[in-house]
Amino acid sequence: MNLTANGGDFTDATRPIGVFDSGIGGLTVAAALRELLPAERIFYVGDTARVPYGGKSAATIERYSFEISRMLLEEGAKLIVVACNTASALAVAALEAQLDVPVVGVIRPGAAAAVAATRTKRVGVIGTRATVQSRAYERAIHALDPSVQVDAQACPLLVPLIEEGWLEDPVTDDVIARYLDPMLRNGVDTLVLGCTHYPLLHAALERRAGSGVRLVDSARNCALEVRSVLTADGLAAPMDETGGMRVVLTDPSTGFLRVAESALGLDLGEISVRVAG
Amino acid sequence: MNLTANGGDFTDATRPIGVFDSGIGGLTVAAALRELLPAERIFYVGDTARVPYGGKSAATIERYSFEISRMLLEEGAKLIVVACNTASALAVAALEAQLDVPVVGVIRPGAAAAVAATRTKRVGVIGTRATVQSRAYERAIHALDPSVQVDAQACPLLVPLIEEGWLEDPVTDDVIARYLDPMLRNGVDTLVLGCTHYPLLHAALERRAGSGVRLVDSARNCALEVRSVLTADGLAAPMDETGGMRVVLTDPSTGFLRVAESALGLDLGEISVRVAG
Repeated sequence: MNLTANGGDFTDATRPIGVFDSGIGGLTVAAALRELLPAERIFYVGDTARVPYGGKSAATIERYSFEISRMLLEEGAKLIVVACNTASALAVAALEAQLDVPVVGVIRPGAAAAVAATRTKRVGVIGTRATVQSRAYERAIHALDPSVQVDAQACPLLVPLIEEGWLEDPVTDDVIARYLDPMLRNGVDTLVLGCTHYPLLHAALERRAGSGVRLVDSARNCALEVRSVLTADGLAAPMDETGGMRVVLTDPSTGFLRVAESALGLDLGEISVRVAG
Repeated sequence: MNLTANGGDFTDATRPIGVFDSGIGGLTVAAALRELLPAERIFYVGDTARVPYGGKSAATIERYSFEISRMLLEEGAKLIVVACNTASALAVAALEAQLDVPVVGVIRPGAAAAVAATRTKRVGVIGTRATVQSRAYERAIHALDPSVQVDAQACPLLVPLIEEGWLEDPVTDDVIARYLDPMLRNGVDTLVLGCTHYPLLHAALERRAGSGVRLVDSARNCALEVRSVLTADGLAAPMDETGGMRVVLTDPSTGFLRVAESALGLDLGEISVRVAG
């Protein structure tokens, strides 16, 4: 498997940042990158033909992550952002070990935001089954502060509710209560939205958690980490470049795309489709 | 693409029946086949690495269906059962055109059951987004009786609720009410469970629909159609054969498998994993 970028000239700062997600949710991260780094070109691949990753095994998630990374490298990506919590939890270490470009996931930035936010040293994490089972957030939080107690809860119904568009809905509120109440009773004061879809439920989650609980997500912190890596490696695009975004999906079903586009205020332009794997 | 079975001797009645589904739900069909045709060997492939199919495009669903069919033919399948409503709706015609073995889907058997059951000539159909958008049930029902009025409703939250194990739960009851009430107000007296997972919600669906509405699913009717095809083509296994079932999944995540195994009373034995595609 040849996983070097086309051409191999990694000092070319005008190459795009490659961003991938199992689907559309990672556009929350792409939006944060666009805002913080307007001179950068973003090449986004959403693996909508095999979405969701969150209920699948580590081996399958790792295989898919390498296949999508190869698509990004074929476009000359100078850095890869794994804008999917599940793939970040299960594949970033392997990608870092085998790819020739820097890899930035969303777990460490989210963990750092949580550790900075908590006062009670009790942090809640919500995510997919695979993310929660991996215990990746616990490890990343404990690497920063071993005294923080972490309550993690898999929330497999939230993504389908978001994709159904039931963002403000009593059924969604009931499901959120079911998932959050045990950790709220345990006194968490910070809640990590450990799935890129969840910011679309920010209002509903905040309503249940109450004003004493800080909600943190990885998007902004991940963009900040990307900026430091690019700067440190001399890979940042010149300030006078006109950045942009290209979106490729592995399946053209776009029902949820319209929900995301309007909720995120992103203009995605034309979207193309390629087969992965 | 060589899509003939290994060996090519299609008169060998001891070959297995190949059954495929996007995941585990098709085991409801496999269970009906085991009950009706105990002498037959069933080779079941669940494409759990790419589940669900229901929100994906027709092109992707057709490609996956050919890839999984190839796995079944490599095992010498004498007949292929598409035990997935989404794949039946979108790929059976193409499979029939290109494969050398008979192909039986679940749409036509479900439509036949509905037409036989309705008195008011108003039938409701629930299924995935892809199944409902395909209008395959409408076409199959109208081919049998053009006077039947069909109300179809996509229910993308039901499969995640079932896989979460919330089979008897007020949240599930609320979601079911949201999906069913419009068609109930329209006076349907028959409801087609157009997704192989839905029989696991039979009690909850029946409670909402009321005693005046007949619930029909494809499993038993599909098994009856398989029996007629095998008999007509001289492919039925000799009565003294000992049938059985082998299950292969494309991803080993088995959380829902335990729910299904106990709900269906199936002994699945050892399950193996193979990569598709």
